[in-house]
Amino acid sequence: MKELISIVDKKLDEYLQIVYPEDIFKAMKYTLMLPGKRLRPVMCLETARLLGCDIEKVMPSACALEMLHVQSLIHDDLPCMDNDDFRRGKPSNHKVFGEANAVLAGDALLTFAPQLIIEKSKGLLSDSQILRIIHEYTKFAGAYGLIAGQVVDIESEGGKLVKSPEETLDFIHLNKTAVLFRLAVRIGVICANGDEKVFDEFDEFATKFGLAFQIYDDIMDEISTFEELGKSIGKDEASGKLTYVSLYGLDEAKCKFKALIDECYGIIEKYNSKIFREILDKLKNRIFG
Amino acid sequence: MKELISIVDKKLDEYLQIVYPEDIFKAMKYTLMLPGKRLRPVMCLETARLLGCDIEKVMPSACALEMLHVQSLIHDDLPCMDNDDFRRGKPSNHKVFGEANAVLAGDALLTFAPQLIIEKSKGLLSDSQILRIIHEYTKFAGAYGLIAGQVVDIESEGGKLVKSPEETLDFIHLNKTAVLFRLAVRIGVICANGDEKVFDEFDEFATKFGLAFQIYDDIMDEISTFEELGKSIGKDEASGKLTYVSLYGLDEAKCKFKALIDECYGIIEKYNSKIFREILDKLKNRIFG
Repeated sequence: MKELISIVDKKLDEYLQIVYPEDIFKAMKYTLMLPGKRLRPVMCLETARLLGCDIEKVMPSACALEMLHVQSLIHDDLPCMDNDDFRRGKPSNHKVFGEANAVLAGDALLTFAPQLIIEKSKGLLSDSQILRIIHEYTKFAGAYGLIAGQVVDIESEGGKLVKSPEETLDFIHLNKTAVLFRLAVRIGVICANGDEKVFDEFDEFATKFGLAFQIYDDIMDEISTFEELGKSIGKDEASGKLTYVSLYGLDEAKCKFKALIDECYGIIEKYNSKIFREILDKLKNRIFG
Repeated sequence: MKELISIVDKKLDEYLQIVYPEDIFKAMKYTLMLPGKRLRPVMCLETARLLGCDIEKVMPSACALEMLHVQSLIHDDLPCMDNDDFRRGKPSNHKVFGEANAVLAGDALLTFAPQLIIEKSKGLLSDSQILRIIHEYTKFAGAYGLIAGQVVDIESEGGKLVKSPEETLDFIHLNKTAVLFRLAVRIGVICANGDEKVFDEFDEFATKFGLAFQIYDDIMDEISTFEELGKSIGKDEASGKLTYVSLYGLDEAKCKFKALIDECYGIIEKYNSKIFREILDKLKNRIFG
């Protein structure tokens, strides 16, 4: 896993060169290059590898996933959104580069990600594979995916619920968190030319993993420290945010988390993936270890 | 021209349906559906038509161009950017939907535009045409195009210039304004399978038109009224912004504008386009009429 993370880090650094006007590229690169778990790229690469695809072919798309993720973090941290001064233990993007540049750096990453996929996948993937990846990217990144999750999340903080709290929470978790893990494995399957059955299998894995990951995040916001997480904590409770913990309580949250993680082990078992096991183990041990 | 605008308006309305979570789609649609000149879609459609391509084939991409343009307006109007309370004569997006939704509505339009191109061009254009259009879109919309122009524009307001004022102004005008007109005609040429010579010809036209359009905008900010423009005026001077007028004076600006417009008439003459002539005439008459 560590090796894969360092390959991704190296590629991210290589793909995003700083040119004129330097300030925007520096702002894009600042949050992108903060040390992270690179979960989405790693899951994308590992899915493709398990299905017999050379990870070189998947690298541009995998790195694009991290850019998309980082874009959502930069905009999420803005004063008008979650207003968070720290990210991955460092001052957030707008604290370093100002709000205007943070807005534009997010926009630029959102556009650069598909550009990277197109430019660096040429010759490695077919036109129809590339087009399918870009299509998935736009569907999952936008108002039918990630952004829908963010909007409902913000609305729920203001107490504005169109659906029941349970349905609303499901919608937020599926769209705000699970969506990028789903996108990651789906891109892996596309690169490997996997069939519909494999698609569904990995999609189910990623969906359950995403839900578990968000419940994990909700639990950590309740029980962890700033040093551990590298971002402000206890914010969910302070803002009256709808979370798994606030809706079902800490014990029920832990049970649900464990059940989902165990289902993930089950779905992925036959592939005998050291990396997926490591990811699941780590998450489980942080809560129960 | 009026007919074409109303076809574009109808299509924009049709392509962007309001679904759950409604707030984000309403925010996207609010600024998108404010009456506008639809210059970029119209120029895209007309380029394709002049080259013998059915405009039906170009419609999704043409509408995507307007979405990209509107995205840049929504983010541009934010308090941390140009801080503009009005757009097209109405309260700007963040004044109606709040800053968080305005940020997300911009992000969502930026992602929906290529999604629309992919989904609605299927069967009308080849995969390789669609991929080429998306590639141009990402290059021109991002940190190597539109966003680069915006960043340098913001920096110039703060008096931070890396290049000479003249070079900086050229860079801003080319990247902030001309870039979307270039993208518009280039997409038109791609849809019509035009050759390299045609590409260069329309690109030159759009570049000169874009520069003229920005000088026109600079002049109007100096001599026009709020009622005429539908947005705050006299802001350039107040903010010490680098504009053609501030750098070269009003008379020189008018001369340069006229020279560029006349070059545009020249390049496009052989196509005998009523619509391009109408666009050029209108712009010219507003300054000299």
